[in-house]
Formats: sequence, C-alpha cells, structure tokens
Amino acid sequence: MTTLITGVAGFVGTNLAKQLLQSGHEIIGLDNLCRGTRANLKSLESHPGFVFGEADLSDYEAYRRTLDQLAAGRVIREVWHLAANSDIPAGIADPQVDLRDTFLTTLNTLKVMREREIGKLCFASTSAVYGDLGDTPLHEDVGPLFPISNYGAMKLASEAMISAALESHLQQVFIFRFPNVIGTPATHGVILDFMNRLRAQNAYLEVLGDGTQQKSYLHVDDLVDAMLFVRGRADECLNYLNIGPRDTGVTVRFIAETVRDLVAPAADLRFGEGNKGWVGDVPRFLYSTDKLAALGWEPRLGSAAAIRLAAREIAEQLGIALPVTDR
Amino acid sequence: MTTLITGVAGFVGTNLAKQLLQSGHEIIGLDNLCRGTRANLKSLESHPGFVFGEADLSDYEAYRRTLDQLAAGRVIREVWHLAANSDIPAGIADPQVDLRDTFLTTLNTLKVMREREIGKLCFASTSAVYGDLGDTPLHEDVGPLFPISNYGAMKLASEAMISAALESHLQQVFIFRFPNVIGTPATHGVILDFMNRLRAQNAYLEVLGDGTQQKSYLHVDDLVDAMLFVRGRADECLNYLNIGPRDTGVTVRFIAETVRDLVAPAADLRFGEGNKGWVGDVPRFLYSTDKLAALGWEPRLGSAAAIRLAAREIAEQLGIALPVTDR
Repeated sequence: MTTLITGVAGFVGTNLAKQLLQSGHEIIGLDNLCRGTRANLKSLESHPGFVFGEADLSDYEAYRRTLDQLAAGRVIREVWHLAANSDIPAGIADPQVDLRDTFLTTLNTLKVMREREIGKLCFASTSAVYGDLGDTPLHEDVGPLFPISNYGAMKLASEAMISAALESHLQQVFIFRFPNVIGTPATHGVILDFMNRLRAQNAYLEVLGDGTQQKSYLHVDDLVDAMLFVRGRADECLNYLNIGPRDTGVTVRFIAETVRDLVAPAADLRFGEGNKGWVGDVPRFLYSTDKLAALGWEPRLGSAAAIRLAAREIAEQLGIALPVTDR
Repeated sequence: MTTLITGVAGFVGTNLAKQLLQSGHEIIGLDNLCRGTRANLKSLESHPGFVFGEADLSDYEAYRRTLDQLAAGRVIREVWHLAANSDIPAGIADPQVDLRDTFLTTLNTLKVMREREIGKLCFASTSAVYGDLGDTPLHEDVGPLFPISNYGAMKLASEAMISAALESHLQQVFIFRFPNVIGTPATHGVILDFMNRLRAQNAYLEVLGDGTQQKSYLHVDDLVDAMLFVRGRADECLNYLNIGPRDTGVTVRFIAETVRDLVAPAADLRFGEGNKGWVGDVPRFLYSTDKLAALGWEPRLGSAAAIRLAAREIAEQLGIALPVTDR
C-alpha cells in the first residue's frame, strides 16, 4: 500500500508518516521545506518504506515531475494532503501565501489525483472554516460558513474544490477539521511563541489580548489517532468531521501560566486589552466533536493536559532544561 | 457616485449598469470580453456617465492599470463584482477556467479594493454554493456547504475570501446568491441552447435527462431590482441573501415545451434518462427566499412567467420571427 503525504515535513505530517509507516504503508512524502524542516524528516528517512522529495506543490509541473520520480511506477492508493500555510499571521500580511501554499497545492493535488486515478483523499481542514458564529455550537453541519481569516477561507475553498472533485473523479474523501493541535516537532503556535520569547528574556511575557480568549487544544498523538480511527471506520463517500477534545478549552492565561511556570517561574505576565489577539482570531468557540464521539473515538488528553504535555515536549525540543516534576 | 462593475459586458452586468446609470451613478465597467460582448455595451457606451475598459481581471497588473486609466483620479465608492465564468460545462472540462475567471478575479478585486480603500462590495454568488442537500430547504444559514461543481466551489471560495477581507479592510458586503437567471442579452443557458438547436434543425429537440429536473428561474429585471432593493435596505456589515422567485420552479420539460411551441411547434421532444443533466447538475432543490421576502421584496414574475417572457426576448435577440400572441 503506497500512500502520498503532502506537507510530510511539517508538524502533523511527520507524526502521521510515523504512524502509517508503523502500520505497513509505504510512504512517498513531499514538502517544500518552507515551514517543515529536514530535521523533522530524519527519523523517517531511516525507514526503508519512506521516500522524500522536495517540491513547491503550488507549481504543478514541479509537483508532477517530483512525484513521477519518487513513485517509479508504484500505484498510489491514497493521498493525505496536509501541505498548507500554517502561519496565520503570514497569510494576513500577504494573501498570496495562503493562495499559493494552501489553495493552489490543493488544486494541484486534485489534478495529480485525477491524472493518476487515485480515488481516496484525506484532507487536513480546520475549525477556522466556521468563522465567528458567536454562541452557536460548531457542529459539522452548521452554517453559514464565513471564515474571518485568509487561512480559514483558503481551507474552505479547498474543501469546496474537493467536494466538487468527488462529483467528477474522486471516490472517497475524508475532511478532518483540525482544532488547535499541539506537540512536537512544533513549527509555530502559542506555546512555541511564548517559550521563544521567554528565552530571549525571562523577566516578563507580553500576551496579546486580555488572556480570556478560550480555545480547545488537542495533542498531535490524539489527532493522528483520531484520523486513522475515522479512516478505518467511516464509509461515506464524503466524510467530514471535527476533531478535537471533549472539553470547551483553556484560556490564553492558562497557557501563559503553564509555560511561565515551566521555563521562567519568576517571569511577570503582562496582558493586553480586548479578547481578540489578532485579525482572524476568534475569541471563544464551542467546537462540537459529537460526530467523532458517536463513531466511538475519545481523546486520551483534554485541553489542559495536552497543553501541559506539549509544553514539556516543546521545551525539550528547544533544549530547555526542565525542573524535575512528578506530573 | 462612481461605481465599478466587473463583468459589465455580461448578461447581468449590462442590465445592472443600465439601472445604475438611470439612478445617477457614474459607471466604470471592466470586462475581458470572453463571454460578455461589445454588442452588449452599445446602449451603455452612448451614456456620458459610462466608461469601459477591456482587461483580463485575473491578471492583477492589467486590472490595476486599466482601472487607473479609467478612474483618472475619481474616487470609487462601490464595487459590483460580477465577472466570473458563467459557462458551467466549460469549468467541468477545464478547472483552470473557474479558477482564473471566477476565483482569481475575486482575489484581484479584493486587492484593488484594499489598495484604493474602497469599502463596499456587492458580489454575485450562486445557489450552487449549496451543492446537493437533498430535501433540505436551502435557506442562507444551511450547512454543510459542499458544492458539486467547480463553478459552485469557486463561488464559495470567493465568498470565503470576501468574508475574510471584511475582517481586515472591507466595510460592507452584499453577497447575492443567484438562482438561474434568464432574459437578454442571453450569453448561455438552457433557453438559448434549445433555441440554437432548433434553429440548426427544427424536426426534434434532444433534452439531457428525463425532463423532470425542476429549477426555479428569475427574470433578470427582477434580479437587478432585488439587488438594488437589498442594497438600499439591508444594513449589516455582511449581508448575504438568496435571490429567486417564490415558487419551487418549473421542469426542463416545461422549458423545452415553451421554446418548442414558440419557435418550432412541429418539433418532436426527445428526452434522455435520469434526472441529472450533467456533472454538477442538481436534480431539484428547495431554494428558500424567505429572507428576501422578509425584507419586503417580491418578484414581479414567477418561474413559469419568467421562462415565457425570456423565451420571447431571446427569440427576438436571435432574430427569430415569432407568432403573434396575446400572452
């Protein structure tokens, strides 16, 4: 069974590839190595079932050529399309980034799949497709869908093209709407950001917004576990699911305190004003994972436990000496 | 008041421009003249308040350059973005068409608006964003949104980018989800198609599908009237409305019979099989216009009357001699 993973050198891609290799898949991995890194690939490249190619997947000819070389006649049965711009602020500064790295990579993945007659696609979407629906619980069938960031918009645009492709040439699609996912190898995100700032100076930590923004977080091990669980169970042509913990999340203040306590206990926390951190940031939302739970999946870690574990893992990744703890 | 209309030489653009000129707007019109025609512009170009530029709006530099020349220092207050690929089968044959003419023209319109600090956008969206939701009434807040054509997908993608832009630089947005709109100058659509085929030979008319596909139709005069009505009444930042008649539509058989009776009464109607005409065609849907009705707008013509009027108008456009009738 040969499987293509786009964005394989990224945070989720690396973790997914590990799991799929362990369960016997041969993996062809592609990445432009913009946000994903060679270092992330190290443990994968030692595996005989893994091959990697560097390519800008928004460039169709480069995509196709690199894949042709790596596939070398093998039949690809399944594609996991994870390649995307994961840096939301970068997409706000320059809308071209999300267009190119999130949307055009999806269009090209669909073209490649059509050409190679690959029928099965698993897609990393996001809770950001829902935009800011206030107090409406965000179950999968809610509407209207008006994203408030280019990131969310290009993910929704990708979902739309995938669903149209299902009508013409795809056979089965899994759309996974990710929550905030944490763990290692961290490439971006609030924990890494806080830690890097406290490494630069450990006297204080400035937090965007007043700290009351609340979000749910899932550990990447749980995310990968959920996706593989769903891929094995769900059998519609079009499967679309929110993935996330069962709780309603933790506040930015909780995250700041957790990081501070771990790496710079004496640091002063300084909060800003308002409950929106940046353009496109949703202050609080009620992300429903009932559909996933109804399939029989439960996460091992809730938001708070995931934050605590990921903080330790990311500190380790950064080479920060940690206090001994029995947590 | 200077207003920019993209896709001004198209079917809806021409009709909208006429109305806006009549109510005192100065119009800058842009079109790539791929589907829209110079002939459509004739009656507009005699108006002193109208200027036109030909440009490929998927090419940002061409868009900007042409607009700079035409605007000549005038401040544009409002943009009506109608430019899009309106030929659904063309978009099925080549996904690049919808990407370029529907989606990239939207992205470039947003860029132009950001640069020129234009706050108000009216956008021609479509009922095709809803995909095939079976028997679910299609009100504006329904979900999930999984379009089944590239056309619908690129319109949904455009809506998503517009809603994200509202969070960063736009001030007010009107998203109008069009039904099937008919009238003149017809550039495509089922009536024109049937008529052209009966002009080529008038012995029979072959109809895709079994003729039971049912859709609602709105006359373009009603469409323009509804949009201007809403633009004058609705005052949210993000206004999104279905526009359509109040009935549940007419069948393809009714349209075929209407056209046949008008232009080739002796022709034999030949139906195919199944109730889907082409990939992306939704057999029947329950398009809700309650939100529009609640604002106080009613169409002058229902689906059947709109079909009968448009058939006569399109026959005239084609120079077909019509039987005298008192209808």
